[in-house]
Amino acid sequence: MRGLATDPAARGLLDDAAVLPFSGDLVLTKDLLVEGVHYLPDDPPADVAWKLVATNLSDLAAKGATPLGLLLGYPLGDPAWDRAFIAGLGEVLARFAVPLLGGDTVQGRGPRTLSLTALGRAPAGGAPDRRGARAGDTLWVTGTIGEAGLGLVSATAGLNDAYAHRYRRPEPRLAAGRALGPLVTAMCDVSDGLLIDAARIAAASNLAVTIDLDAAPLVGEGRAARLAAATAGDDYELLFALPPGTALPVLDVPATRIGAFAPGTGLTLSDAAGPVPLPAALGWQH
Amino acid sequence: MRGLATDPAARGLLDDAAVLPFSGDLVLTKDLLVEGVHYLPDDPPADVAWKLVATNLSDLAAKGATPLGLLLGYPLGDPAWDRAFIAGLGEVLARFAVPLLGGDTVQGRGPRTLSLTALGRAPAGGAPDRRGARAGDTLWVTGTIGEAGLGLVSATAGLNDAYAHRYRRPEPRLAAGRALGPLVTAMCDVSDGLLIDAARIAAASNLAVTIDLDAAPLVGEGRAARLAAATAGDDYELLFALPPGTALPVLDVPATRIGAFAPGTGLTLSDAAGPVPLPAALGWQH
Repeated sequence: MRGLATDPAARGLLDDAAVLPFSGDLVLTKDLLVEGVHYLPDDPPADVAWKLVATNLSDLAAKGATPLGLLLGYPLGDPAWDRAFIAGLGEVLARFAVPLLGGDTVQGRGPRTLSLTALGRAPAGGAPDRRGARAGDTLWVTGTIGEAGLGLVSATAGLNDAYAHRYRRPEPRLAAGRALGPLVTAMCDVSDGLLIDAARIAAASNLAVTIDLDAAPLVGEGRAARLAAATAGDDYELLFALPPGTALPVLDVPATRIGAFAPGTGLTLSDAAGPVPLPAALGWQH
Repeated sequence: MRGLATDPAARGLLDDAAVLPFSGDLVLTKDLLVEGVHYLPDDPPADVAWKLVATNLSDLAAKGATPLGLLLGYPLGDPAWDRAFIAGLGEVLARFAVPLLGGDTVQGRGPRTLSLTALGRAPAGGAPDRRGARAGDTLWVTGTIGEAGLGLVSATAGLNDAYAHRYRRPEPRLAAGRALGPLVTAMCDVSDGLLIDAARIAAASNLAVTIDLDAAPLVGEGRAARLAAATAGDDYELLFALPPGTALPVLDVPATRIGAFAPGTGLTLSDAAGPVPLPAALGWQH
């Protein structure tokens, strides 16, 4: 682990704390992964390391923030698993150029609970949240939605296909988040499902939101498959509100206009055939 | 949990991240507690909350830092245990006037792994660490050493005595740490044992250290009991090096001069009878 903590702020992990000079708005997030809940016990350890880092960085991306560093809480267990996890951790840290600043390693017991704290620098204009959407704003999402949900099915069935890869190695939209941060009125990442996350932005902003299912970049054919994609979660795409007339900046990932905010409350769905009844569950409920 | 996160930076825990304006040197630490490893399964949940917060704040105290806030990683399990933990968490947050800024709550599985990240502001002159002791510096420790070790024995035996209380509810030396921070050349907290932590300061500073067992504020009578106290750990007192001639500031806890640093390497012990052989283990080895 020490070999990964090369940033001067980490003090070589030889001290009990990291010391990081900073001035600005600090964005702080902490996400846990529990074996058997957030990842499958048979998932490759390097993929678990990736997912742990990527899900935390995704929260920073949704704030338009630039990552500053990570603190890891790691329960030691099977040495081969630990070695593979640490190798994967090195890979994902290098991929996103984020330093490991510190953390704690303990003797684990039972199913693993992995914890990570991510620190980032907020954009100059302030970090967006879910509360700022206004009536008339348009709703957008990056990338495609539903592949990770199919990937969970694949991974559970023991398949190593592209969907399983997407489930195990989500891509935090850091560059897109930084580009969007100064322009959006509200933003979050799609972690629990497109519909539930859109409904949460609307509720936090005291507005109604409509989504055009035909426009949404959902995987699958037919209404049932597309509704399943829209409620599956684990996509880690960015979902955001733009004031009318705002030009979308150049992003490193496609973004699609999928709906709009209006006075009122609640979520409404439509497609070419007209209004679509809401599914029983809009996504993952904590 | 939301009722505890009243600081504006926490955004009511309704967002995926906290946003904290800050300028200076940020001190970051993350300590985990594992059920059955760092606390006893039968320990009262409010005491576990206390210990989780206190051990992290103790790391800040050893940096002379002022706490800014905490991020909690909490696995939900038995509802009664969770309620008692959260009540205890509220108590310890209030006791040390530190805000809960955010975190993550997950569905737990098996023995609990609790994680906490603590953020603090370093003192103006910089945060001390273990590496700065100089030959001729004196070695000091706050409070008494060994009560928590006796407390582990008491708690394991089901006793609720003052020692068990000391084991379960350590007192982070925040005020003393702030007063000492600008004066010390090296400082750490005594978490793994007085002897091992002193040896670590000496090793990190490329020096030898001698400890006078008669001077050290160890609980117990007789050399065996005093050596047990000096290697027991969990005291969370401050251990620090002062340049010769430095006046000890007024502290809210007694501090005792117990030794000195000299050129060389290693730890030596003495008492009135002369040199004392080192015990087989100097403290808790990770």
